Amino acid sequence: MAQPIIGIDMGGTSVKLGVCQGAAVLHRDEPIITSDFAGAEAIVAEMARRVAILRDAHPEVAAIGVGVPGFVDVKTGIVHELTNVPGWREVLLGRELRELTGLPAVAENDANCMGVAELRYGAARGLTDFLAITLGTGVGGAVFIHGRLYHGARSGAGEVGQMSIDYRGVEGPHGNTGALERYVGNKQVADRAQQLYADHGVSKSAEECTPAMMAAAAQTGDAVALSVWDEFTSQLACSLANCCWLLNPQAIIIGGGIAAAGDLIFGPLRQKLSAQLAGPFRDNLLVVPAHFKNDAGLIGAAAIAEDLARPH
Amino acid sequence: MAQPIIGIDMGGTSVKLGVCQGAAVLHRDEPIITSDFAGAEAIVAEMARRVAILRDAHPEVAAIGVGVPGFVDVKTGIVHELTNVPGWREVLLGRELRELTGLPAVAENDANCMGVAELRYGAARGLTDFLAITLGTGVGGAVFIHGRLYHGARSGAGEVGQMSIDYRGVEGPHGNTGALERYVGNKQVADRAQQLYADHGVSKSAEECTPAMMAAAAQTGDAVALSVWDEFTSQLACSLANCCWLLNPQAIIIGGGIAAAGDLIFGPLRQKLSAQLAGPFRDNLLVVPAHFKNDAGLIGAAAIAEDLARPH
Repeated sequence: MAQPIIGIDMGGTSVKLGVCQGAAVLHRDEPIITSDFAGAEAIVAEMARRVAILRDAHPEVAAIGVGVPGFVDVKTGIVHELTNVPGWREVLLGRELRELTGLPAVAENDANCMGVAELRYGAARGLTDFLAITLGTGVGGAVFIHGRLYHGARSGAGEVGQMSIDYRGVEGPHGNTGALERYVGNKQVADRAQQLYADHGVSKSAEECTPAMMAAAAQTGDAVALSVWDEFTSQLACSLANCCWLLNPQAIIIGGGIAAAGDLIFGPLRQKLSAQLAGPFRDNLLVVPAHFKNDAGLIGAAAIAEDLARPH
Repeated sequence: MAQPIIGIDMGGTSVKLGVCQGAAVLHRDEPIITSDFAGAEAIVAEMARRVAILRDAHPEVAAIGVGVPGFVDVKTGIVHELTNVPGWREVLLGRELRELTGLPAVAENDANCMGVAELRYGAARGLTDFLAITLGTGVGGAVFIHGRLYHGARSGAGEVGQMSIDYRGVEGPHGNTGALERYVGNKQVADRAQQLYADHGVSKSAEECTPAMMAAAAQTGDAVALSVWDEFTSQLACSLANCCWLLNPQAIIIGGGIAAAGDLIFGPLRQKLSAQLAGPFRDNLLVVPAHFKNDAGLIGAAAIAEDLARPH
């Protein structure tokens, strides 16, 4: 049986912590609310304090894995920048947690963690060459090659959300025109729905236009909602087809909040992908929902840290 | 010293043959003109006849490598389809050449051959994770991961020319809207130049608007030509940035006819790529011309076949 590992899943507003053993979350801690702490150092100190408490209950904990929403250099352990968490630039997160706790610790991009959770215990078991995508506020991704997470030259591989679907399109966060996440992110879906309702003379609040609300509306045949998802799947299909042309994967695993919309997304997405791929890219391509929901980050971060806990 | 290998480079209208030894072409045969022969079987028979003649002059030839402009399943050796050569569907090219010649023979996608030539002997020596791109009638590509050519699930990886730069754009050959090669292919460059000249009240023939003519015109400051290359590099930068976001490569090696335009393309291309990539993707990224020109296909096909010639 695998040793228990502490998984930490950093989001834009909160940090989730848990003790994991394989695909099971043995113990869940209260999340750390990022805004309660002044900057990276204070949050890392709070993480270490929480780790100490978790170890009192689970003294056999062997390592710590942290998933972060941004670029992590896995060679140096440096968290370069967290797009949505101010003050996080060039933080040696793994080393600092090691020094504060005495446990082996590793940091990794959150979408990479999600992909590893799916490979070890979820929808990608048995696959070797695939992509894992998370749909949410932004769009994250992870690339798996020959059965292993692929990092590229500087640990950045898998940034599907930054890939362009229109070279003259909306500007992304890095000057990248047409960045996918500026079309299919949660907020963009809501904005687009509000705009389409307004075009039909209907005034709706942002809260009435969340992806979950739009999914429910589409189930009832609401024309605006259907149109929102039609655009959404066309835009997403474009980027996923690009990934297929470049990497010819066995599968694309899709997780995150919006993926919960299920067949509403997966049906049209598969059809639109098929319609724009050649045989060797289209035939046998799996496009499937992720197995894990909210725990993917915790379980994946712990899975990545598991190797650190093994005796050498 | 490596044993001599016969390299065969299939194009849309002709087939080049040569005896290669490492990066050297020891002997060049007259090209086979595809239209002189009725279908795949007759061309393969002619290849075998030419191989026999080349072996008379070079009896130490140890294997045959063929680069083809289309999808090759490297596991089965089946050439699925050659976009620009009618009658080539599901041809067991490697096996047929083996049976006709008695030599080990292997078929591979032509852009993959070009990439292997660059890795072994050219601009990519010493690199491990990079892309090789060929610009011509179409756009081909090859992906290298951990120092080796990457094929993906069904040998299709690297089809950069089919990747979309506009999800509502021009339709590509596989229903793929916005396919890069429908913007930056030789014919598309000429068409666009003719159109822009016409907008300026100038009538030019297609022959006056080839990429080579447009490169020359740009050197003299011709406004239309400059505008053509500005669009070209924006469109190409979009696709290459997409490759970078997904794979975070060390380098992009660019070959093919248009690449000969040199700084006219490479300067703006590097600048536009930098302007739309984040630090870990942009810093240290090499964007460089291929070392090999017309011989890349021959030398690369031979390089791939070299492994077949080694004693096991």
